[in-house]
Amino acid sequence: MLEASKAGKLTRVAIDAMGGDYAPEEIVKGAILAAQKGGVEVILVGPIATIEEELAKYDTSGMAIRYVRADEVIREGEHPALALRRKPNASVVVAAKLVKAGEADAIISAGSTGAAVATALTILGTLEGIERPAVGGPFVGFAPNTMVIDLGGNVDCKPYHLLNFAIIGCVYAQKLLKISNPKVALLSVGAEEGKGNDLVRESYPLLKNSGLNFIGNVEGNDIPDGKVDVILCDGFVGNILIKFCEGLGTNIAEWLKAKLRGRLSSNDIEAIADELKSLTNTVDISGGGPLLGVDGVAIVMHGRSRATQICSAIFTAKQAVDSDLIGALRSELKGIQQGS
Amino acid sequence: MLEASKAGKLTRVAIDAMGGDYAPEEIVKGAILAAQKGGVEVILVGPIATIEEELAKYDTSGMAIRYVRADEVIREGEHPALALRRKPNASVVVAAKLVKAGEADAIISAGSTGAAVATALTILGTLEGIERPAVGGPFVGFAPNTMVIDLGGNVDCKPYHLLNFAIIGCVYAQKLLKISNPKVALLSVGAEEGKGNDLVRESYPLLKNSGLNFIGNVEGNDIPDGKVDVILCDGFVGNILIKFCEGLGTNIAEWLKAKLRGRLSSNDIEAIADELKSLTNTVDISGGGPLLGVDGVAIVMHGRSRATQICSAIFTAKQAVDSDLIGALRSELKGIQQGS
Repeated sequence: MLEASKAGKLTRVAIDAMGGDYAPEEIVKGAILAAQKGGVEVILVGPIATIEEELAKYDTSGMAIRYVRADEVIREGEHPALALRRKPNASVVVAAKLVKAGEADAIISAGSTGAAVATALTILGTLEGIERPAVGGPFVGFAPNTMVIDLGGNVDCKPYHLLNFAIIGCVYAQKLLKISNPKVALLSVGAEEGKGNDLVRESYPLLKNSGLNFIGNVEGNDIPDGKVDVILCDGFVGNILIKFCEGLGTNIAEWLKAKLRGRLSSNDIEAIADELKSLTNTVDISGGGPLLGVDGVAIVMHGRSRATQICSAIFTAKQAVDSDLIGALRSELKGIQQGS
Repeated sequence: MLEASKAGKLTRVAIDAMGGDYAPEEIVKGAILAAQKGGVEVILVGPIATIEEELAKYDTSGMAIRYVRADEVIREGEHPALALRRKPNASVVVAAKLVKAGEADAIISAGSTGAAVATALTILGTLEGIERPAVGGPFVGFAPNTMVIDLGGNVDCKPYHLLNFAIIGCVYAQKLLKISNPKVALLSVGAEEGKGNDLVRESYPLLKNSGLNFIGNVEGNDIPDGKVDVILCDGFVGNILIKFCEGLGTNIAEWLKAKLRGRLSSNDIEAIADELKSLTNTVDISGGGPLLGVDGVAIVMHGRSRATQICSAIFTAKQAVDSDLIGALRSELKGIQQGS
């Protein structure tokens, strides 16, 4: 096992080894996959004996994997804030503290989402101007570079929240999707200015005067068309949309299987249905995404994440760190506050 | 042509012969299709010469079709309220007046939606307790008996609006979808009580105590699964969802065509893609739906509606009239008001 010797140039990703339905097995396996690819040092956080037992199943010699002790685990269903107070040595907490202390560059957890978010907020805090972190990203496989934000916890928003989402979304699109000067739009019920609910109508002028590349309103059918780079909505709408997309895609895949039965080979049918599911259930593929607006790179994963998703999250974290996503967010948010 | 002689037992549907992208040709053709099926008397409303010219193309002898003169037409893009004032003899206005006067049982228009809604509101008015009519219905072909309401104009709602949608939705489900004791749910971001935005959380107790068969919250993925009969949301969320469904379905159909090329015959591929489009673009199939909450049966159609859609709307209107949808709505709304 490689100690910190080579870690100077590697992106150091702390991962909650005990978080997730398949922890620690799949987490450790994902860490190894990532270390094999290179460019990262993975720091597994959890009880030493458990981690050593898992690692012993593999030949990890020469790999940039190390581990940090944490003897407690926050379980799914525990009250996040209470658990955080009662278990200061929980794996997710210790992992976040490594980031706070500058000993790791990013944290990943597939454990209880509530606990992961609470930990990120308590230990890393939010960037100036952000009350609650947002979750965003492309969620329709047909528009892999169109990010929608917020998909998460901000269910009741004010116009300045949507402005913040716009800033976060643009920085994300620039840094993680490599889009320069991203086109930003409000999700609404009509293209014209004045169409929409109170939130959209009040946010419109704010965005128009933001200096961002704001192109106006788009409608629901514009999301899968990929014409816009950053689409803004409150987390209530975003969450319903992403789940509707998953449900509709799954229904269509099942319908398609029945439709094609006897006309193509079973293997071909399964492959088409699986591809369709992956195009509509993108969170199942990515396993999660960064909590945007937190003062540090923090990636929250589905509990059911497997090794390949953990590995992919480690490289998302690396990309966020290497492109200085947080620094760019901080300065953009500051720019808007000074401008307003 | 049959005059009012046989009309006593027929459902009398007044139709704006001049409204729609393909008016009067497709409107008249749709009226003839409906009259051939029987059970309805279609009253075409528009300039006499134009209607007669269209009707002359067909052998309509013995059919229950008549016409009523209206010499003005409200065009797409005209300001609805202004147009209504300036053109008291517009086809849509005259058609609505027939309903108001008891000379017709229902009105259908595929003309300017704004003008049709304004006409219905001005001439027929809303039922007691309703400020603005709602639009609702099943919109995912995989769940043909799950209606979502509101899909339309009520973009900013209060809890009592959602309660009204619930009542309207249940009556619609009973009368038009033939579901007894329909299961009602709030569309939200989590199943548990307390999950959701302010609107959902405040509406929850209201629905719980409504006497309706309220089963709690459902999420976006529950819509295409068809587990619930009536799903409540504000018109902002509903409109975005229905358009997203259309856009995603169209994207998947195109992807599927490319995927199947060379593996099935072109005809088979087109048939599958078309079926998928029809399952996800249900408004294209139905052409529109009733304005729910108006004091009369008023069906507003897409401008691009063709004869088959006009014909189908005529029978939706007939079903609404024959089942006394409006009477049932009126008494249910009154019951709730007295109960509260």
